[in-house]
Amino acid sequence: MGVIVQKFGGTSVGDAERIRAVANHVARTRRAGNDVVVVVSAMGKFTDDLLRLADDVSPNRPPREIDMLLTAGERISMALVCMALAAEGIEASSFTGSQAGIITDDEHTRAKILEVRPDRIREALRDGHVAVVAGFQGVSASRDITTLGRGGSDVTAVAMAAALNADVCEIYTDVTGVFTADPRVVPKARRLARVSFDEMMEMAATGGRVLMLRSVEYARRHNVPLHVRSSFTWEPGTWIVEEDSDMEQAVVSAVTDDTSEAKVTVSGVPDRPGVAARLFGELAQRGVNLDMIVQNTSENGLTDISFTVALTDVDAARGACEAVREEVGAAKVSTDSNVGRVTVVGAGMKSNPGVTALMFETLSNIGVNIEMISTSSIRISCVVRADRVEESVRALHTAFGLDAS
Amino acid sequence: MGVIVQKFGGTSVGDAERIRAVANHVARTRRAGNDVVVVVSAMGKFTDDLLRLADDVSPNRPPREIDMLLTAGERISMALVCMALAAEGIEASSFTGSQAGIITDDEHTRAKILEVRPDRIREALRDGHVAVVAGFQGVSASRDITTLGRGGSDVTAVAMAAALNADVCEIYTDVTGVFTADPRVVPKARRLARVSFDEMMEMAATGGRVLMLRSVEYARRHNVPLHVRSSFTWEPGTWIVEEDSDMEQAVVSAVTDDTSEAKVTVSGVPDRPGVAARLFGELAQRGVNLDMIVQNTSENGLTDISFTVALTDVDAARGACEAVREEVGAAKVSTDSNVGRVTVVGAGMKSNPGVTALMFETLSNIGVNIEMISTSSIRISCVVRADRVEESVRALHTAFGLDAS
Repeated sequence: MGVIVQKFGGTSVGDAERIRAVANHVARTRRAGNDVVVVVSAMGKFTDDLLRLADDVSPNRPPREIDMLLTAGERISMALVCMALAAEGIEASSFTGSQAGIITDDEHTRAKILEVRPDRIREALRDGHVAVVAGFQGVSASRDITTLGRGGSDVTAVAMAAALNADVCEIYTDVTGVFTADPRVVPKARRLARVSFDEMMEMAATGGRVLMLRSVEYARRHNVPLHVRSSFTWEPGTWIVEEDSDMEQAVVSAVTDDTSEAKVTVSGVPDRPGVAARLFGELAQRGVNLDMIVQNTSENGLTDISFTVALTDVDAARGACEAVREEVGAAKVSTDSNVGRVTVVGAGMKSNPGVTALMFETLSNIGVNIEMISTSSIRISCVVRADRVEESVRALHTAFGLDAS
Repeated sequence: MGVIVQKFGGTSVGDAERIRAVANHVARTRRAGNDVVVVVSAMGKFTDDLLRLADDVSPNRPPREIDMLLTAGERISMALVCMALAAEGIEASSFTGSQAGIITDDEHTRAKILEVRPDRIREALRDGHVAVVAGFQGVSASRDITTLGRGGSDVTAVAMAAALNADVCEIYTDVTGVFTADPRVVPKARRLARVSFDEMMEMAATGGRVLMLRSVEYARRHNVPLHVRSSFTWEPGTWIVEEDSDMEQAVVSAVTDDTSEAKVTVSGVPDRPGVAARLFGELAQRGVNLDMIVQNTSENGLTDISFTVALTDVDAARGACEAVREEVGAAKVSTDSNVGRVTVVGAGMKSNPGVTALMFETLSNIGVNIEMISTSSIRISCVVRADRVEESVRALHTAFGLDAS
């Protein structure tokens, strides 16, 4: 018995039957004596349908109106979930982001939560109701409707759990938890019972598709235990919690892969102070988010600077580099979209110096060339050719003893 | 140049092309120098689709959640209208019922507007924006989302026009105005250029399908000139305004028909004080709205009481009458669904005593029997057999000189 936040994504509330299944599960959680807050996304592909409709209507779509449009989606799913709960004999009330007190900045289509004022949610729980909250949406200080961007519903759920000091935030999705690798790439991948926030953040940042980085960050900052599980099998999934001394620390917990990035290289760059600052300043000003950055050692006073960016940002990145190329005296800007990244993540890596060596050796054994390397205390990432990513993941999964027996 | 409220119903914003046509018309009104407030309904059959979805999900649909569900509809259409206006180079902002300050009571699915606080709408107009407001929806004092029931978007438009002291409230629909009779029944029906509020109220109450009674009542109370016109042809339609001395007063302006009611008769009722009060008290308590009521003259201390109710209320009405039948000592309760009403409406009737006679004579000439009669100073209604309604309307239309030449 406690306060439980349950978040259901678009596929979990994809049709009438799924909505009834969700209501049945919520009802059981409620009958067990828990206070339950449900956070829902828009149904299935409804958001895509709305965006297509907007496309048909106008080439000019002000962000404020995009938010007004898209927030219709959660309204529909949350009202339907409340109706299905009524059929289960459970009293429930739905709340928009605004009604739930999700206060954001005014960056339409990608707002950040500034504050949660869950007065009405507390009131509903006190009245014995299940509170069903619209994910993904909030309201700005100027009382305009905002949306939180990709992965926004997870952020809503975590923020609500933090504000209510919930015992757990359960994230229901179409997979049964967090795996040692993407099961589509590695058939022998295993579900992890527990993962630390730090590991999960590294996994999310390097291609893990289960949770977005921002919701894990939020959960870690407020120490909200997450439980990722399936709304199709309802079996227990993966807990994401603060690392503690009891935790079994696998040297490597998971291998992730990401082929959504491209590599940009500026070559023949004069190796003198201020050059990198000018280059990366220009990139930042154009809103290009960089991921890995590598600078080679200087040769004859010239160096190469490589970095990775999302495939969607390649043109903007090239434009930024070309704009400052002459000014900084660089020779050439080149881009390469046929790259991918493989990463090993593990909290136990900190006390096991041999991980890097084993990773390089494993890739070398299968003839994969490493083009860029980036590390943190619990992660090692290598950029390789895109068409070698999957076999690299499988080889590393085996080498680090993660294969299911 | 002034303040113009333009209301567009579901068919007027039924698809992307219609929405662009609406935006084009709004843009032209704005460019002519007017301050424009647009009120929109949900697109076409979207509301029906949502209700069907709710039906699939649950047999139990709390009214509060029905309102949360349905209000998604206007959100979508108003955001799309704003986007289409952006493509026309017109700055526009959408506002939910709550943001537009439509404060209602808390009767979910049929709320009444208590107050309009259009601060944000005024602000938008001051900034040179077109304000696009969600019709049909409001917010209660307890900050719950409400809907205004059938014809609610018209009420929103009229209430907004009243609060802003607008010069006109234009109601765009799929017909070109208010006609002397339903053109499907009377091919020779003519469009009226002007109708008084009183006439329009009588027409709305007796089967006129263009405007709902409540929006005309609201407009009359606040003296908001209405202009009913087509969003397909954009031609000028019918003005509904306060009656003034300049107005040409046709003896009869229109003939309406209504076959949506049934007749209930309680016969053999003792003719003594308190009996009718007990009967109608019971009907009121069960929420049955009566329309025409007729009591025959007493014979041997017994009388018959007949009244009409909406077809959907027949069972409830019969139940109420049966419940008090023995107590008041009445003989029998009977119902008859095969009735219809024909009505002639005209502000000039007040000073023309011959109207009743001409109406009865006309019906008599075609062999139609009159079962009930009800009059006001500008209206005469007769209940006749349902299958004689249409020919009665045509005969009256001709007799009162309304046929187009």
